Amino acid sequence: MAGNSFGHLFRITTWGESHGPALGVTIDGCPPGIPLSPEDIQKDLERRRPGKQLTSPRREPDKVEILSGIFEGTTTGTPLSLVIFNRDIRSKDYSDLARLYRPGHADRTYEQKFGIRDWRGGGRSSARETAARVAAGAVARKFLQRYGIWVKAYTLALAGIHCRNFRWEDIDENPLYCPDAQCAIAMEERLKEIRTAGDSAGGIVEVCAKGCPPGLGEPVFDKLDARLAMALMSIGAVKGVEIGEGFAAADLLGSQNNDPVTPKGYASNHAGGILGGISTGLDIVLRVAVKPIPSISKTQQTVDKDGNPATIQIKGRHDVSAIPRIIPVCEAMVLLTLADFMMHPFPRNF
Amino acid sequence: MAGNSFGHLFRITTWGESHGPALGVTIDGCPPGIPLSPEDIQKDLERRRPGKQLTSPRREPDKVEILSGIFEGTTTGTPLSLVIFNRDIRSKDYSDLARLYRPGHADRTYEQKFGIRDWRGGGRSSARETAARVAAGAVARKFLQRYGIWVKAYTLALAGIHCRNFRWEDIDENPLYCPDAQCAIAMEERLKEIRTAGDSAGGIVEVCAKGCPPGLGEPVFDKLDARLAMALMSIGAVKGVEIGEGFAAADLLGSQNNDPVTPKGYASNHAGGILGGISTGLDIVLRVAVKPIPSISKTQQTVDKDGNPATIQIKGRHDVSAIPRIIPVCEAMVLLTLADFMMHPFPRNF
Amino acid sequence: MAGNSFGHLFRITTWGESHGPALGVTIDGCPPGIPLSPEDIQKDLERRRPGKQLTSPRREPDKVEILSGIFEGTTTGTPLSLVIFNRDIRSKDYSDLARLYRPGHADRTYEQKFGIRDWRGGGRSSARETAARVAAGAVARKFLQRYGIWVKAYTLALAGIHCRNFRWEDIDENPLYCPDAQCAIAMEERLKEIRTAGDSAGGIVEVCAKGCPPGLGEPVFDKLDARLAMALMSIGAVKGVEIGEGFAAADLLGSQNNDPVTPKGYASNHAGGILGGISTGLDIVLRVAVKPIPSISKTQQTVDKDGNPATIQIKGRHDVSAIPRIIPVCEAMVLLTLADFMMHPFPRNF
Amino acid sequence: MAGNSFGHLFRITTWGESHGPALGVTIDGCPPGIPLSPEDIQKDLERRRPGKQLTSPRREPDKVEILSGIFEGTTTGTPLSLVIFNRDIRSKDYSDLARLYRPGHADRTYEQKFGIRDWRGGGRSSARETAARVAAGAVARKFLQRYGIWVKAYTLALAGIHCRNFRWEDIDENPLYCPDAQCAIAMEERLKEIRTAGDSAGGIVEVCAKGCPPGLGEPVFDKLDARLAMALMSIGAVKGVEIGEGFAAADLLGSQNNDPVTPKGYASNHAGGILGGISTGLDIVLRVAVKPIPSISKTQQTVDKDGNPATIQIKGRHDVSAIPRIIPVCEAMVLLTLADFMMHPFPRNF
Repeated sequence: MAGNSFGHLFRITTWGESHGPALGVTIDGCPPGIPLSPEDIQKDLERRRPGKQLTSPRREPDKVEILSGIFEGTTTGTPLSLVIFNRDIRSKDYSDLARLYRPGHADRTYEQKFGIRDWRGGGRSSARETAARVAAGAVARKFLQRYGIWVKAYTLALAGIHCRNFRWEDIDENPLYCPDAQCAIAMEERLKEIRTAGDSAGGIVEVCAKGCPPGLGEPVFDKLDARLAMALMSIGAVKGVEIGEGFAAADLLGSQNNDPVTPKGYASNHAGGILGGISTGLDIVLRVAVKPIPSISKTQQTVDKDGNPATIQIKGRHDVSAIPRIIPVCEAMVLLTLADFMMHPFPRNF
Repeated sequence: MAGNSFGHLFRITTWGESHGPALGVTIDGCPPGIPLSPEDIQKDLERRRPGKQLTSPRREPDKVEILSGIFEGTTTGTPLSLVIFNRDIRSKDYSDLARLYRPGHADRTYEQKFGIRDWRGGGRSSARETAARVAAGAVARKFLQRYGIWVKAYTLALAGIHCRNFRWEDIDENPLYCPDAQCAIAMEERLKEIRTAGDSAGGIVEVCAKGCPPGLGEPVFDKLDARLAMALMSIGAVKGVEIGEGFAAADLLGSQNNDPVTPKGYASNHAGGILGGISTGLDIVLRVAVKPIPSISKTQQTVDKDGNPATIQIKGRHDVSAIPRIIPVCEAMVLLTLADFMMHPFPRNF
Repeated sequence: MAGNSFGHLFRITTWGESHGPALGVTIDGCPPGIPLSPEDIQKDLERRRPGKQLTSPRREPDKVEILSGIFEGTTTGTPLSLVIFNRDIRSKDYSDLARLYRPGHADRTYEQKFGIRDWRGGGRSSARETAARVAAGAVARKFLQRYGIWVKAYTLALAGIHCRNFRWEDIDENPLYCPDAQCAIAMEERLKEIRTAGDSAGGIVEVCAKGCPPGLGEPVFDKLDARLAMALMSIGAVKGVEIGEGFAAADLLGSQNNDPVTPKGYASNHAGGILGGISTGLDIVLRVAVKPIPSISKTQQTVDKDGNPATIQIKGRHDVSAIPRIIPVCEAMVLLTLADFMMHPFPRNF
Repeated sequence: MAGNSFGHLFRITTWGESHGPALGVTIDGCPPGIPLSPEDIQKDLERRRPGKQLTSPRREPDKVEILSGIFEGTTTGTPLSLVIFNRDIRSKDYSDLARLYRPGHADRTYEQKFGIRDWRGGGRSSARETAARVAAGAVARKFLQRYGIWVKAYTLALAGIHCRNFRWEDIDENPLYCPDAQCAIAMEERLKEIRTAGDSAGGIVEVCAKGCPPGLGEPVFDKLDARLAMALMSIGAVKGVEIGEGFAAADLLGSQNNDPVTPKGYASNHAGGILGGISTGLDIVLRVAVKPIPSISKTQQTVDKDGNPATIQIKGRHDVSAIPRIIPVCEAMVLLTLADFMMHPFPRNF
C-alpha cells in the first residue's frame, strides 16, 4: 500500500530515481524452475530504450543485472533482484527545474504530498521508472510462456492519426509498432512537424493477450479487468483504459453487445475476453489513451516555488511522444497482471 | 486478494448472493467518532433501489441493519457490519437458467473458475451485490464530509443520446440524474422504445469529486487514478474508465493538454485533478462506459450445460439499462477510494 | 491491516461486540465444493460454549447462521458470511464499568487508541469475539479434512499444576481436555479453590497438527512458525508461544537439538515439525502460555475516567480460567493458518 | 504474501542469497524528511558483523550502499534501496553440501517446497539474510528517534547459564551484550568449551522498547504483541517468544498478574507494556528462545539426495552460537514492527 508494489502472488516492488545511482525491481513469488538470463530481460529493455529515431537522444545502456534468485541459470522461488545502474546522468540539464514547476508534471503534487522533491529529471516520477517495470515484465513473460500465453501491444493512433487497417505482420516492421504500415509513415511525418514546433503528441495503444485460460480473475473487486485497468492506469502517461468495445459499448444495444455462445465457443468478442471479471478464454483486448508528454520546448506559463509567475521552456532530452517507448511498458503491466492471476488458487489448482 | 475486499486502511469486504438469505459488508478501518445511523445509509440505498419507473419491478425494501461497530450512535473504530436481508426472493423465476448460460453474463466464467455456480439470479455475480457497496459508500461519505469532500455522479449519455448542456441543478430534477433536463426526456423516450423491443441500452456516467486536498495517491502503482480505475472497472457493467480529457487527450498536443500554473492555481483542468497519480486539489473528474445490460427478452443464441445449442429469452425482472441505478454505485466506489487514501499517512499526518 | 482480518488466501474478517446485536465472520477464499452445514460449525462452537461447569454461567446458545457462500449444501468459492446473534445480553451487569478501568483489561488502551470505548462487557476486546474465530476455524477444519490434516489442542498445565503423563485417549474424557486424567482432577480441585478466593488462573495449552505435507510456509518473513506465532498471540489471553523444544532449546546443545535424518525420515522432532519456517511433514507442535483471566472478584486498585483512585470488584459472569474454553480457539487459529498456507502456490501446485 | 516482505505502511522486502552477488532490502513507506547516511546503517551492521571473537571468522565488510530514496541527505518518501555486495564468497567451502542435507537446517524443506535448492551456504535460508533486516532496522531506528522511541536487546541466558543480575550499564561492556558482566565471563568460558567439543549453544535474548506511546496495535488480529511475535519468530534461530511475564504467567493468579492502575500510572508491568494487543505506554518487554545453531563439526547422521544414509561434519566458517550476532537482528525486527505501527492512522492522526 505504500505504493511501489504491484501484484499479490507474483509481486514486484520497484525503486529508483531518474538521476540516482540506479533503479531496479524485486520480484517476490516468481515460481522456481524458470530458466532466466539477463539476455531474456535485456531484449525487452532494448525495445523501451531511448536513443533511437523519434525518441530522446539520451544514451542509456540500461544494462540489467540479476543480483539474486537465480541458481545455475534457473529461478529458485526466492526473490529476484534486478538492477539497472544509471550511467548517463547529467543533473545540470535539470538544475533550473529546482525552482519551477513543470506544467503537466508531478513536480508540484509530489511536493504537496511529501514536502520534498527530487527535482533531477522528475526523480521518482520520471518515466525512467518504467524500465524497472519492463524488466519485471520480461520475467513474467518467461513464466507465462510455459502456458502458451503471450501479450503484444501496438499503436492504434498517434498525433491525431488513426489506423485504418490491421495487419499483425506490420507491427514489428515499423518503429511505431503500428499494425497499419501506411499509417505509420504518416504518423512519423506528423511527429516530425510536432517536434519542430516544440510540441508533443498523444495516441492510443491496444494490448492483446492470447492464450489465457478461462477462469482468471477474482470476483468481485479483484476482477481481471479491474486489475488490468489499475495496472495500465498506473503508467504515468495513461489517462483512460477500455476493454473490448469499451466506450463504444455505451452506444450499443444489448442485442448488439452480447456475445452469443455456440457449441464451438463465443460467436464474437465484444466483451474483450472478460465476463463478470473472469477471463473467457478468448483474446483479452484493451486500449489505453496516452496523453501527449508534458515536456515541451514551447514556452509555458507556470510559477516558481515562491508562487511567483514564471515561464518555462523544457530543453533537456525528451521524446516527442510516449509512443512507441510506452509499448513494452503496456505489455509489461498486462504480463505482470496475468502472471499474478496465474498463481491464484483458481481455476488451476483445486 | 481472494477478491471480495477493497481498500487498505478503510477496507470493505462484501458478501452475499442475489437469492441467498442476505447480503452485506464489513467495514474495517472506519475511524471512530463518526455519528452514524441506519438512515444515513438508507438514503443512498434508496437511490439504487429498483421498483421505480424505468427500472426492474422487483420490490426490494433493502433495509440495512448495523450489527456492530456503533456505540451510542457513533462509530468506535471497530468493524462495522452492515446487513441487508433479502426479502423478495423468487428463485423460480430463474430456475430454467440452471442449465443455460446467459450471453453477456458471468454464468459460464464462474463455472469455469469454480466448477460450481449459484444460478439463482446470477448468484454472486448479480448486480444486487452492489447494494453492499452503496451501503459502505454511504459510510465513506459520512467520513469524508468531515473534510468537505463530496462526490456526485450523473448521466452524460444514455442509449446513444449524449448531453449537450451541463447544469448541476438539473441533475437531481430528473430520474436519470442527467445534467441536461431536455436530453433526459429524449433518453426516457428512447429507453421506452428499447424496452418494448426487448432490448437494453448502455451509456456514460461521469463522476466528480470536489474538495479533495492535494497530495492524495501513492506513487507509483497505487496512483489515485489507478485505484479509481480499478474501483470503477470492478463494477460489472463498466467497460472503460477515463480521467480528465481521457481518450480525447490522445488527439491533443502537449501545449493543449498541459494545465498552465498561475499564482492563483491551475489555469485549466485537463488532467482531471490528478498529476503523477496524486491529487492536485482541483475537481477529480472521471467518466465510465456502461455497457447495455445483458439480460434482454429478445431471443439469443446460447448453449446448455452439455454444450448443445439452445436459445434463451430472459424473462424475469430486469432493468432496461444499468443507468440510473449504477449512479450511486459509481459514487460509492469513488467515495470508498477517497476514504482509503484519506487514511494514508501522507500528506496529512507527518 | 485495519486489524480484523487474518490470512491471505483463506482470509477471514471478524466483527462484533460482546453486547452488540450480533457477531460474525466473513471467510473470503474458501475453496468451492466443500460440503458445509451449520451443524459442522455448531459442533466447535459448543466446545467453546460457556454455561458448563467451571465456566461462566452466561447462557449463550451461540447459534450460527450461514448467510452466504453456500449453494445446495456446498461452498461455491464466494464469501461465506457466518453470523451469531447475541441473545443473552444484560448490559446492566457492566454499567458501572463505564467509568472504571478494569486492571489487566484493554479498557484503557482502547480508549487511548480510539478516544472512545464500548464498555459493555469489554465490547470488541471481549473474549466473546473468539466465537467468530471458532466458527471460521470449523470451516477451515472441513477444508483440511480433504488432505487428512487435523488439529488438536489440550491442556498441559493449569493453575500451577503441570501434567506428568500424556495419553491421547484421556483428552476428550475430562472437561479440561487434559492428556493426564489424574492431573485433571487435581486441576479442577485447584480451580474451585481459586474461584472461592475470588481469583483466577492461567495455564499452558499445547496444539498438535498432524498430516501436514512438507513444504508449507514462506521464507523469510511469512514462515509457518512466524504466522502461527502471530495467530496464537492474537488471542487475548496468550502471552507466549513456543514451537518444538521452544524455550527449552535455549539450554540445549546443537548435537542435542538437531533432528538427525535417516532413510526412514527424521529420527526426532525437536524442531516441532518446522525447519527454516517450512513444514517438515512431521507433527507440528506448539505451546502457548495462557494468562490468568483478569476479571476477578477480589478487590483491585484502579482509577476512574477522571484519573481518581478507585477500587473495583468484577462481579458479572466470568470464568475462573480461560482454559478450557480457549482450547477450540487455539485449534481454530492453527486451522486457519494451515488452511491459508494450503492455498499457497507452493509446494502443491507447480 | 510471497513471504519476503514485512510490515504494511513501513514495508520492507528483502532479497539475496548467502553466496550470490549481493543481498539487500527495499523500504517502501519510509516517511520523507529523515536525514539518513550510509553511516547510520553501517553502525548497526557492524554489531552484526562476524569476524570478531566468538563468531565466525568469515570476513564480511558488509558495506551498505543506498541506491535510491535519498535526496540531499534526506529521505524523500520514495523507496529506499539498500544493497550489500557479497565480497568474501568461497563457494567451495560448501560444495559437498550439494548432496547432503544438514540436520537442523532448511536444506531439505526448501527442496521439498521449491523442488530446487541453492546449496551454497544455505542460499536464501542462510542467517546472512538477516544483514538486510539489520540495515532496514537502522532506518526504522532513525525514524523512531523522532518520537523518542528506542529499542535495546541483550542476552539473558547463553549455553545454559542464566543471568542473575541486571545492570543496563553492563550490556555494552561485554561482547555478549549481557546485563550481568560477571555472568558474561562464565558464558564465554562455556562457549569456548562447546566450540572445542565441536558443538553449539542456544540462549535467551530479551528486547526492551522504551518510549512507545499508548495506543499502538490493531485489534483483533494485528495486535502489537501478535505482530511482534511474528516478527521475532521469523528469525531462523528463534523457537519461542513471550511478552511480559510470558510463560511464567501460566502459573500466576489473576491477582498477581494484573497490573493495578494508579493515578500515577500502572503500578507494575506484568503485561510487558501491551494490553488487549495495544501498547500501554510502559516499556515493551519480550523474550525469545534462541536455539543452538545447527551447524556443528561433530559428526551427525543424515541422508544424501538419493535417500542413502550418510554422516556429515560441518567444517566451514560458523559461529558457536547465534548470540551475540542475533542481538541487532532482534532489535531490527522490533524496530520495524514499531515503525510500521507508528505510521498507522490511530492513535496519532485523527
